[in-house]
Amino acid sequence: MAQSVLPHSVQRLIDEFARLPGIGPKSASRLTFYLLRAADNQAGDLATALQDLKELTRLCSVCFNITEEDPCLICDDEARDGKLLCVVEEPLDVLAIERSRAYNGRYHVLHGAISPVEGIGPEDLRIAELVNRVSKGNFQEIILATNPTLEGESTALYLQRRLADQNIRLTRLARGLPVGGDLEYTDEITLGRAFEGRQNL
Amino acid sequence: MAQSVLPHSVQRLIDEFARLPGIGPKSASRLTFYLLRAADNQAGDLATALQDLKELTRLCSVCFNITEEDPCLICDDEARDGKLLCVVEEPLDVLAIERSRAYNGRYHVLHGAISPVEGIGPEDLRIAELVNRVSKGNFQEIILATNPTLEGESTALYLQRRLADQNIRLTRLARGLPVGGDLEYTDEITLGRAFEGRQNL
Repeated sequence: MAQSVLPHSVQRLIDEFARLPGIGPKSASRLTFYLLRAADNQAGDLATALQDLKELTRLCSVCFNITEEDPCLICDDEARDGKLLCVVEEPLDVLAIERSRAYNGRYHVLHGAISPVEGIGPEDLRIAELVNRVSKGNFQEIILATNPTLEGESTALYLQRRLADQNIRLTRLARGLPVGGDLEYTDEITLGRAFEGRQNL
Repeated sequence: MAQSVLPHSVQRLIDEFARLPGIGPKSASRLTFYLLRAADNQAGDLATALQDLKELTRLCSVCFNITEEDPCLICDDEARDGKLLCVVEEPLDVLAIERSRAYNGRYHVLHGAISPVEGIGPEDLRIAELVNRVSKGNFQEIILATNPTLEGESTALYLQRRLADQNIRLTRLARGLPVGGDLEYTDEITLGRAFEGRQNL
C-alpha cells in the first residue's frame, strides 16, 4: 500500500536484495537508496560482477571447487602435497582453510552434507566422485573436514564407511576451545571434547 | 595471498558487495557463494534490477524524490493535500513517513543536510528549489522533518530563517519517547524533550 509510492525499479531492487540471506527489508532499502546516491557507476559495476559470476565460473572437474579454469588453480599447483586430501562441505570452507595457511594438500568439495531432514542424501553430493578419485589416486591421508555439526558428523561417518576398504588413513579436525574464546562461555559439548582431546605440555 | 585461490570473477563480486554499507568481507563472501549455489537465475535478476535502477529512475522536477515518471506519483496525486509540505533529508524518509500513514500532503527532498564537517553547505542541497517552490505555491504549513540530529536541526534552523518572510506556519516533528521504547534506556536529551513536550490527558 504505502510502498506504491516507490518507483517500480526501486521496489524491484529492494525485493532482489531482500531475497539474499541475512538482508532484511530495511537493509535492502538502505542498500538500494545508497546505490541511487552513489556517485560513480557502482550499481553498474555490481551488475557486471553479478553477470560475470555465473558466466565465467564452473566447478573444477577434479575437486568440484568453484573455478574459472579447469582444473582449478589448486588442483593444477604442482607445489601442493598430492598425498593429502581434505574433504569439505562448501567452497567457502576451502577459502577458510586457505586463509589459515595450515594446509597445503588437495581438496574435494562435496557441495553440502547429508541431511535427512532436508532430503539431502549421499547421491546429492559429490561422494561418488570422491570415492572414484580416491580409488584411482595415491593419497596417504584423507582429512574429513566436514562441519562439527550433526549433518557434518553424519557425513564424515558415512564417508568413513565408504572409504574404509581403501586402506588410507582417515582423520577428522580436532574439536576443542576456539582460540581467543572464553572457557566460561564455551558450550558443554565443546568443553567435553576439549577435555577428551587434552594434550601434554 | 590466500585469496589468490579464488577465481577472479568470484573475488570481484565479493569486493563489490563489500563496498556496500553494512556489508563486511565475510558477509560479502557469504552472499557471493550463496548466489553461486542459488538454483534459478537469482544473480541475473539482481544484475538486471541494478542496471534498471539508474536507467529508469530520475529525480522528480517538483519535489526531487526518486521517480520513474516526472512529476512523481505523489506530486501527481490530486487526492493529496496541496496546502501541506513536508521537507525531508532523503528519499528513504518519504518512504518511512508514507509507511506511518500519518501524513497526506506533499514532500520536498533536500538530498542531505547541512554539515560543515562534511563540507555540505546549503548550495549543495535542494534549498533554492524549495524556497522558489514555496514562494510560488499556496502552502499553509511547512513541516521541517529533517532528522533530530545536529545536522538536521541546523538545517531546520537555516530553513526557518530562509522561509521566515513567506508568512507560512513552520513546524517540526515532535521529539519524545519512541513508542514501545523503555524509559529506563532512553537517553537524557530525549527524556528532557519528552518532559518539555508533555501533554494533558
